[in-house]
Amino acid sequence: MAPLRIGIAGLGHVGCGLIELVERQDRLRIPGQIEITGVSARSQSRNRPVDTSKYRWFDDAATLAEDPDVDVFVELIGGSDGPAKFAVEEALKAGKPVITANKALIAKHGMALAKLAEEKQVDLLFEAAVAGGIPVVRVLRDSLAGVEIKRVSGILNGTCNFLTTTMLETGRSYDDVLAEAQKLGYAEADPTLDVSGMDAAHKAAILSAIAFSADLDFSKVKVSGVDTIELEDLRLADRLGLRIKLIAEGVLTDDGVVCRVEPMALPVSHPLARIDGSLNTVRIEGDPVGAVTLTGPGAGAGPTASAVMGDVAKMFRPAIRPAFGRAEHHMARPFTEGRGDEVSAFFLSMRLADKPGALAALSESLAAEGVSVDKILQDSADESGASPVAIVTHRCARSNMQAALARLQKFAIPVDPPRLIRIEAAS
Amino acid sequence: MAPLRIGIAGLGHVGCGLIELVERQDRLRIPGQIEITGVSARSQSRNRPVDTSKYRWFDDAATLAEDPDVDVFVELIGGSDGPAKFAVEEALKAGKPVITANKALIAKHGMALAKLAEEKQVDLLFEAAVAGGIPVVRVLRDSLAGVEIKRVSGILNGTCNFLTTTMLETGRSYDDVLAEAQKLGYAEADPTLDVSGMDAAHKAAILSAIAFSADLDFSKVKVSGVDTIELEDLRLADRLGLRIKLIAEGVLTDDGVVCRVEPMALPVSHPLARIDGSLNTVRIEGDPVGAVTLTGPGAGAGPTASAVMGDVAKMFRPAIRPAFGRAEHHMARPFTEGRGDEVSAFFLSMRLADKPGALAALSESLAAEGVSVDKILQDSADESGASPVAIVTHRCARSNMQAALARLQKFAIPVDPPRLIRIEAAS
Ligand SMILES: NC(=O)c1ccc[n+]([C@@H]2O[C@H](COP(=O)([O-])OP(=O)(O)OC[C@H]3O[C@@H](n4cnc5c(N)ncnc54)[C@H](OP(=O)(O)O)[C@@H]3O)[C@@H](O)[C@H]2O)c1
Ligand SMILES: NC(=O)c1ccc[n+]([C@@H]2O[C@H](COP(=O)([O-])OP(=O)(O)OC[C@H]3O[C@@H](n4cnc5c(N)ncnc54)[C@H](OP(=O)(O)O)[C@@H]3O)[C@@H](O)[C@H]2O)c1
Repeated sequence: MAPLRIGIAGLGHVGCGLIELVERQDRLRIPGQIEITGVSARSQSRNRPVDTSKYRWFDDAATLAEDPDVDVFVELIGGSDGPAKFAVEEALKAGKPVITANKALIAKHGMALAKLAEEKQVDLLFEAAVAGGIPVVRVLRDSLAGVEIKRVSGILNGTCNFLTTTMLETGRSYDDVLAEAQKLGYAEADPTLDVSGMDAAHKAAILSAIAFSADLDFSKVKVSGVDTIELEDLRLADRLGLRIKLIAEGVLTDDGVVCRVEPMALPVSHPLARIDGSLNTVRIEGDPVGAVTLTGPGAGAGPTASAVMGDVAKMFRPAIRPAFGRAEHHMARPFTEGRGDEVSAFFLSMRLADKPGALAALSESLAAEGVSVDKILQDSADESGASPVAIVTHRCARSNMQAALARLQKFAIPVDPPRLIRIEAAS
Repeated sequence: MAPLRIGIAGLGHVGCGLIELVERQDRLRIPGQIEITGVSARSQSRNRPVDTSKYRWFDDAATLAEDPDVDVFVELIGGSDGPAKFAVEEALKAGKPVITANKALIAKHGMALAKLAEEKQVDLLFEAAVAGGIPVVRVLRDSLAGVEIKRVSGILNGTCNFLTTTMLETGRSYDDVLAEAQKLGYAEADPTLDVSGMDAAHKAAILSAIAFSADLDFSKVKVSGVDTIELEDLRLADRLGLRIKLIAEGVLTDDGVVCRVEPMALPVSHPLARIDGSLNTVRIEGDPVGAVTLTGPGAGAGPTASAVMGDVAKMFRPAIRPAFGRAEHHMARPFTEGRGDEVSAFFLSMRLADKPGALAALSESLAAEGVSVDKILQDSADESGASPVAIVTHRCARSNMQAALARLQKFAIPVDPPRLIRIEAAS
């Protein structure tokens, strides 16, 4: 298979993230070879996190789009109009597939661009435009094609979610937390698109068009943001068992598709209420699936670039995609039982005879094998004279746990067969 | 485009669910027409939830698989060997694409079948085999092809999760809750495959093969189930801040892929610890995406059939998949701003002058417009003499809320602009 030659316009967060991924493509699961045949940005001399000097430089994105050495044009400039739109149109008109992360462009001009792509019989892919690293576009479009979707809702702007979460947690004001988000790089220097709800609205409109096969009309989307939310609102709501979050939704009604973004109050038991910090989440409700929820990083150079890379991988279009993703001779990594001895924290539960020295025997056995105890809980004995005992250990080797339990046998204290359970690290 | 002719072998839960979906395909987003050209099951006379008499009957699944009128063979019989395996092999040998929901078959013979499919250059799809309605197979295989995956873990058996969740919640014994699960149809008459962890292991092995391009060898998978878990273990763990759940995982190590299923204890703050009841969830960790989590119904006729339908939709293989999933002339549903007046519960927050009668004026205004109050919270006044007041209403029309607020103005009580926020229904 000939290499796939891509041209990348825009070398900012996402563009440089993509180059970094292309340069280590051998460690990914791409069905063929990717080559970067040209790049474009505003300034050729700017310092970037990756070395772009080895790629052919184009001052003009549209010229790159039309270059005969470019098989696929990747637009990572941004903006609903201007150079991004112009270059994407030129690529499609030249009969080239386009990949973009540009939600503003797709929300505003998606229908016209899709029509152009259809006329030219080329792909227009935009997985990265919605919810960054969460592969919701293809899930909705392809995997759930057999589901009649009723509603799509979610938290689609990490900055807004970070703001409301952090205000409530720390008791700090909107302005204060926004300034922190900017310092951390969560919020843009100009956060208007985010906090006004506009960014989430772009994404919700795109998801609604796909979910409901609807004629995307962004002018019909109702948008309000978190910029009107005060700390006091969050606190009062909290005391009434509610979390206020910026919720984006598309709902199928008898009149058509209602798409909107606004702060909503969620009962604390609601699954979306627990999505904290800068995470994104999308909940898809339909018949006959019920609800499927996808959660993950909604932005950031790496996650967004990985979504672009997923779209690039799709461009190879072999006659048949291998069942497990890669051709059989590439399925080379062995399954293994692993090394017997694993290191973990453990939960140990047993019933111990309620005799003097029983707990001491247990503690000694553990200590003798170097197992250190984090928490211990002994309950009162039952009628048979056995006490339930549970222990949480610090990290240790399973072999040491087993040796400690063997040692315990020697004390001749009746013990119900102990149950040893690994503890998953917090995350 | 000519209709796609499918043959369905197995008319149980999933098979009948699929027929039901095919019969209402016009309401789904399938890129073309699907026709059922033949069906097969053990007993032709059995009563089924859908009328199968209008479809051509085959006593033998393998004969259906080879029938010249069948473009795609759909295997929904089950079992890792026997008639399911034989019919799938016959279909592939005859050069026909196969769709299956059979995790036992794929876990045990997936590599050999994938090889056969590759030789014949036909698709072998099995989205429904892992986690029912959650589209994790295609997400891992295609969407996340640009991610270097480190670990896949999750709750992949709803029966086991229902058991551990319900035991802890209700304080009932394992046997008691298992009997209930069987009555509710969550657990099979023979629950061995589920409670032994074997079913989850099949799924984890399939996901591991895809995630790590690994040579699936089911004999290397370590499996233990929930059948050894006692109520006391769950309770003691709970008191130590841990939830015990059956966790399936595949991890990339220096020696190869370690895949296993076992009860694990999760800190209550861990995202998987909150997955209750019969839900499934899969967490994919990798570079540069961090973690993406998918949650939804892991079994059931409807969700599983919708996953099969997603695979069927994929078989149309038009030259180009339209950008929004359907050809432009099908993108017909309008976006609309919706009717102005919506019915919802509301959260209302304001600062009310701390004057006698202020709260009464608010209550009267609401009552006069027919808005009934669920909860109310007034806090002590600040230095300026204003009290924060928050109200949760029962469901009412937004217009009534607005009329009530207009009415409140007339009382000439200074009020900071009230903030009106919709409350999302619990779910
Ligand atoms: N960042 C994220 O987390 C994220 C997530 C999802 C989607 N997206 C989308 O991805 C796109 C790119 O975002 P980003 O964060 O990477 O933006 P960014 O860091 O601001 O980078 C934008 C890039 O575009 C270049 N550019 C500007 N005008 C240009 C022109 N006329 N021709 C060629 N290049 C031009 C800039 O060049 P210079 O570097 O020379 O100034 C810069 O390299 C946007 O559509 C955004 O909405 C971003
Ligand atoms: N149920 C779920 O929630 C679920 C979820 C994910 C995956 N799956 C998988 O989907 C598959 C089907 O599951 P199910 O729940 O639908 O099973 P089921 O209800 O037990 O149905 C099995 C069907 O196979 C038929 N059958 C048995 N032997 C046959 C033969 N030799 N030739 C043709 N048909 C034969 C049976 O015929 P009769 O009806 O005449 O007896 C029955 O219709 C299994 O691989 C299962 O693991 C199921």
